[in-house]
Amino acid sequence: MKKSKSKYEIFREKIRIILYGTNTILGRMFDLVLLGLILLSVLLIMMETVQGINQKYHNQLIICEWIITIFFTIEYILRIISIQKPVKYAFSFYGIIDLLAVLPMYLSIFFPGASVLSVVRALRFFRLFKILHIPQISHQSVQLREAIDASKEKILVFIYFVLISTIIIGSVMYLVEGKESGFTSIPMSIYWTIVTLTTVGYGDISPQTPLGQFIAAFVMILGYGIIAVPTGIVTAEFAKSSLKNNSVSTKKTCRRCNSQVHFDNAQYCYECGTKLPK
Amino acid sequence: MKKSKSKYEIFREKIRIILYGTNTILGRMFDLVLLGLILLSVLLIMMETVQGINQKYHNQLIICEWIITIFFTIEYILRIISIQKPVKYAFSFYGIIDLLAVLPMYLSIFFPGASVLSVVRALRFFRLFKILHIPQISHQSVQLREAIDASKEKILVFIYFVLISTIIIGSVMYLVEGKESGFTSIPMSIYWTIVTLTTVGYGDISPQTPLGQFIAAFVMILGYGIIAVPTGIVTAEFAKSSLKNNSVSTKKTCRRCNSQVHFDNAQYCYECGTKLPK
Amino acid sequence: MKKSKSKYEIFREKIRIILYGTNTILGRMFDLVLLGLILLSVLLIMMETVQGINQKYHNQLIICEWIITIFFTIEYILRIISIQKPVKYAFSFYGIIDLLAVLPMYLSIFFPGASVLSVVRALRFFRLFKILHIPQISHQSVQLREAIDASKEKILVFIYFVLISTIIIGSVMYLVEGKESGFTSIPMSIYWTIVTLTTVGYGDISPQTPLGQFIAAFVMILGYGIIAVPTGIVTAEFAKSSLKNNSVSTKKTCRRCNSQVHFDNAQYCYECGTKLPK
Amino acid sequence: MKKSKSKYEIFREKIRIILYGTNTILGRMFDLVLLGLILLSVLLIMMETVQGINQKYHNQLIICEWIITIFFTIEYILRIISIQKPVKYAFSFYGIIDLLAVLPMYLSIFFPGASVLSVVRALRFFRLFKILHIPQISHQSVQLREAIDASKEKILVFIYFVLISTIIIGSVMYLVEGKESGFTSIPMSIYWTIVTLTTVGYGDISPQTPLGQFIAAFVMILGYGIIAVPTGIVTAEFAKSSLKNNSVSTKKTCRRCNSQVHFDNAQYCYECGTKLPK
Repeated sequence: MKKSKSKYEIFREKIRIILYGTNTILGRMFDLVLLGLILLSVLLIMMETVQGINQKYHNQLIICEWIITIFFTIEYILRIISIQKPVKYAFSFYGIIDLLAVLPMYLSIFFPGASVLSVVRALRFFRLFKILHIPQISHQSVQLREAIDASKEKILVFIYFVLISTIIIGSVMYLVEGKESGFTSIPMSIYWTIVTLTTVGYGDISPQTPLGQFIAAFVMILGYGIIAVPTGIVTAEFAKSSLKNNSVSTKKTCRRCNSQVHFDNAQYCYECGTKLPK
Repeated sequence: MKKSKSKYEIFREKIRIILYGTNTILGRMFDLVLLGLILLSVLLIMMETVQGINQKYHNQLIICEWIITIFFTIEYILRIISIQKPVKYAFSFYGIIDLLAVLPMYLSIFFPGASVLSVVRALRFFRLFKILHIPQISHQSVQLREAIDASKEKILVFIYFVLISTIIIGSVMYLVEGKESGFTSIPMSIYWTIVTLTTVGYGDISPQTPLGQFIAAFVMILGYGIIAVPTGIVTAEFAKSSLKNNSVSTKKTCRRCNSQVHFDNAQYCYECGTKLPK
Repeated sequence: MKKSKSKYEIFREKIRIILYGTNTILGRMFDLVLLGLILLSVLLIMMETVQGINQKYHNQLIICEWIITIFFTIEYILRIISIQKPVKYAFSFYGIIDLLAVLPMYLSIFFPGASVLSVVRALRFFRLFKILHIPQISHQSVQLREAIDASKEKILVFIYFVLISTIIIGSVMYLVEGKESGFTSIPMSIYWTIVTLTTVGYGDISPQTPLGQFIAAFVMILGYGIIAVPTGIVTAEFAKSSLKNNSVSTKKTCRRCNSQVHFDNAQYCYECGTKLPK
Repeated sequence: MKKSKSKYEIFREKIRIILYGTNTILGRMFDLVLLGLILLSVLLIMMETVQGINQKYHNQLIICEWIITIFFTIEYILRIISIQKPVKYAFSFYGIIDLLAVLPMYLSIFFPGASVLSVVRALRFFRLFKILHIPQISHQSVQLREAIDASKEKILVFIYFVLISTIIIGSVMYLVEGKESGFTSIPMSIYWTIVTLTTVGYGDISPQTPLGQFIAAFVMILGYGIIAVPTGIVTAEFAKSSLKNNSVSTKKTCRRCNSQVHFDNAQYCYECGTKLPK
């Protein structure tokens, strides 16, 4: 609203709109380019670790990664410059990730292997929802988080009991099976117990004695029974939230602002306050 | 309704009734024969790939397959001829499958291995419901699809987060385990992470270092917890749809006693008996 | 009610009460002995197949099995004699099992290996609920069956789609992986697909090529998502039945007949008609 | 309330407040120290079983364990002395665990390997909730236990049927596969069946014959379907308990309009507003 803006101020505002905004065409285009670069960058780092590909295209990969890293670095600096509260951003979740996304490449000048750590860039994908700005998807994600949050405590209590059980079962298996079957220590036996209880079952360690197999069968049936518990907790939360709260859908579209996700019983658009059609 | 139908017209109509209809005895018989032939055909292709059987009965298998293929080809041509809108059929889901079901055998004249692709005929089974025309089963299938459709978005959001997690976990395991344990590259480590998180657990790759096993145990317990999420989503959808006719929500608030949770079709407040707003 | 009963008639009735009844002390004792003998018999057959045990105690095992078999044979004959409708019993589920429980031992005179088939005796355990006559447990079993029955159709439709998918996925993996990785034929590949989709994951066959591993990872995540479907179906059934029907519990005990399982809103004992306490 | 307390009495009361109380600062501090010592102690026992660590630090580990054991012994004696009903405590769940936590070390003087049994100390963790005294967590734990208790019976019935099925399936696989594939005896085959039904799938035993693999695939799909059952049971319990305050049932029928499904605490018919019967 102030008229006396310096050129730098105007530049900062433009940059901020492009980097943080999602409403202008330029801002949206930038977001899509950024998204593509993150994806490309993660794929490049993955390919670098594949022996065959790395040997053939090592230099090309490194060059591409450096280009992307420099782009990300400039982006990071501009983000710091353009935002009103740079310190708050720098220490926010996304601020730290944006920094961690560029650091490993610079570290790799001194410590050759560090470039692999750039894979942390994958965390930038979490911004996708913001970037794509799909309210429907974004809403689903909120519902998901709410149900998980609500059941978090119960699941933690449950995992606490499961962990104590794995210590006891692991120790018993260590005593029963002995070192010949791969149960070389109690931590190893606990590892086996977790592999079995969660029904992963690698088979790298498996009981050999009849008694061990009997206990293992018992543990499996136990695991079979208790896998139901976290599921039950989360499902009940989902069911509750979909019964209790107002259901949200795209049944109504605002005539003015075209926003599509509303509470089923909404009478006014939550974005522009216009009366919604029935 | 027109009287002056050419013989060809009458033939076309007869064919159409047999091929697309399920009400006449002839039409129904044809459908059952077709169903049997699809089943036989899929079994033949499978047997052709089994070394022992193929060596003994190669010629018989090939002859049978050709007979069925020619039958299917005639059927396809008749379908095209008899239907009113042949182009629409040809580009519909079943039209394309009907074509793909016969093409591989003709291709196999030029490319010997192509006959295996005939297995795509299995997709013709999806017509079973139409063919058998069991409304009860058909209804169940609709209910299934509805619940899956309703939960599709939430599950996609969930899988998106799981995939990002597998990239991060896979990279960590690649760094921790190194190439000796089979974690030869990040894509390989991601493959291992998916194998573990989904509790499949082949055991072709498994962590060997204590730290790797510790992280693996953590991933398993994580997988144990989050397997509950898609289940919770789908179950809540099923439960909702089965309560659909009389679902409970907070769509209506009583003007007198301010109670907020009511049956959707409630006309009176269940607490004070006041007429509820529509 | 008739007075002129022959001695044989009285004997038949006594036998019937002992064999089929559960109210007299003698009938109940017989049931418990029978239960113990079935358990012992199943354990004996199992032990006979264990190399070490069989070599040492072969003769003792055989003698014990013959004694139990003769006991079961006498029991079967008495059941036939004592019941009013012997033909109906002989062709009922339990009648056939009772016969199958004794036949293998007699067959083993002519075909030495046949005695292993006696393990079918384990099916006689299903009578346990009737024998023990615990109404509470029996009720749980009815509730279980009802929920499973109600969801049977949906689950069959679901399994039908899963099976078609396994054919398609199996064929793709056969083409992608080739014979070196263990995917020797389409049936073998379908076996692998089922092992993977159900998250069993033996690891006897596992994809070796990058493309195969990519498809496998996709199949796993698919399996992860669709494991939710049968669970959702059954859970919704359970939830519905526990919401819709009157809940049944042991909150009320009849003062007169001491029966303990009643509908929560029951006012009169369903067994003796006495007014129940609140 | 009595004034004439001997010095010993006062000492006993002080000890009791420290050991059993959680309100005083001293009592709380003691609890935290105890918790830390249990954790340390369990870690020490685990490390003792790891070959590499034990060889290097055997003496240090033994000394630490003895110190903790003596501390626990003193604590146990003080608990016995200070409590009003020592016999009741000694035979309570925690009393027995407190004793078992110290016994193995003293036994290890005579039987060298016995010290491993000290791992039973892990059970003392169950006191954590009492010690930390977090009502919220404690409440979650109560809810968890209630839902599990309520579904215990149904799950037991379910497991009973599953166990009979494993005997039958195991025997069939023993007959089909024979001793070459690792199905060396019926108990071994039952072990395999449990490994497969629970989707653990070690792969130490896996079917080799086509028929065996076909049956195995069938068992897996069965397991896939029935894993839904315990989950359904527990989830329905959870959902019920979370709707407890306002559950919907057919307990009340409106006298006027005969509608049957109402909120349990409904006072008026939701359809016609008539006062409902109690």
